[in-house]
Amino acid sequence: MPQRANYEREIIFSILDEGFICHLGLVTDGLPVVIATSYGRIGDHVFIHGSAASRVAKVAKGTPSARIDVCLTVTLLDGLVLARSAFNHSMNYRSVVLYGQASLVVDDEEKLESLRAVSDHIIKGRWDDVRPPTSQELKGTVVLKLPLTAASAKIRRGPPEDNEEDYALPIWAGVIPLDVRASVPIGDPQMDVSTAASVPDYVLNYRRP
Amino acid sequence: MPQRANYEREIIFSILDEGFICHLGLVTDGLPVVIATSYGRIGDHVFIHGSAASRVAKVAKGTPSARIDVCLTVTLLDGLVLARSAFNHSMNYRSVVLYGQASLVVDDEEKLESLRAVSDHIIKGRWDDVRPPTSQELKGTVVLKLPLTAASAKIRRGPPEDNEEDYALPIWAGVIPLDVRASVPIGDPQMDVSTAASVPDYVLNYRRP
Repeated sequence: MPQRANYEREIIFSILDEGFICHLGLVTDGLPVVIATSYGRIGDHVFIHGSAASRVAKVAKGTPSARIDVCLTVTLLDGLVLARSAFNHSMNYRSVVLYGQASLVVDDEEKLESLRAVSDHIIKGRWDDVRPPTSQELKGTVVLKLPLTAASAKIRRGPPEDNEEDYALPIWAGVIPLDVRASVPIGDPQMDVSTAASVPDYVLNYRRP
Repeated sequence: MPQRANYEREIIFSILDEGFICHLGLVTDGLPVVIATSYGRIGDHVFIHGSAASRVAKVAKGTPSARIDVCLTVTLLDGLVLARSAFNHSMNYRSVVLYGQASLVVDDEEKLESLRAVSDHIIKGRWDDVRPPTSQELKGTVVLKLPLTAASAKIRRGPPEDNEEDYALPIWAGVIPLDVRASVPIGDPQMDVSTAASVPDYVLNYRRP
């Protein structure tokens, strides 16, 4: 397959920055667990919160300094690759795999900063418009930090690669491009008329970088 | 969060059938690994091939009867949920998590059938149009089989759930729906004119069930 592991920071960063859902793998009682979750990035660290972080925290058993082995995978699917043979069908994608030891963010200021990074990562501009976390909400939020030390990217793009003798077959071959798109936003029915009418630009024109 | 684990077969099947990329977790040398791959379903079994299957085969160390613990997660992202507080932001999604022991498919007939299931799952109708696998290609393809014994679905849908006192805030709240869409197919430049002109309907009108 025309794919190659790539360790360049810019490529890894661009894939991490376009995606916002990762699949986090960890080992509990010797068995694998994979949880989907959102994430953000500040420099060389990825930050994770939500149920995946809580699951890791459970593995850490309340030890704030615990380091938990995780594998974080981000996959951007760019298209279906239709070859002339069943065997050579493939997908176009860009993916990043990170291996490392995740730790809990304990410092309140770092926690607030990392939650802002996750929010900015998913929908830039939203954080400044909403009610910020109270200190109680902040205490109740588990955030994980994973250094970008062992990361690699894999990319497959372009047309199918068929066996030489298959190119003569009269079979349509090519790529069906796929991407994630936003459609018309649905306002919460519990807004008053003027609030409902003031749809922010980051909602109206939502798109990934 | 307004989500609940669901063990009903119909719900689990519908999520598995709409998705076609899973993230497969396994443990190698005590460390977690997560690999994205396509899959198919025949009744109560999920079939996986590609690099993830090869990775599991490596763990199985050539023992055809080996059973390898895996966790398979399928995540369909349906939207971003924008609440009035940072804390109550969420996502609408449907996900399935399967835990179980994957085994290698060794029987040639079952292998062929499962490869067809994976192909049909991704793009119904394609298998009948293409050159089928040779016996050598079949031999070189690793396919995994995972029984749907321990599966659960999680679903979050609908508007944000804010704290009672936050509803009065003049902040736009609601959902940005997201989905995966196909755009205009790109024919392989190496087709002759008449083959290029005969674009199959499953390519022109590609959509998930």
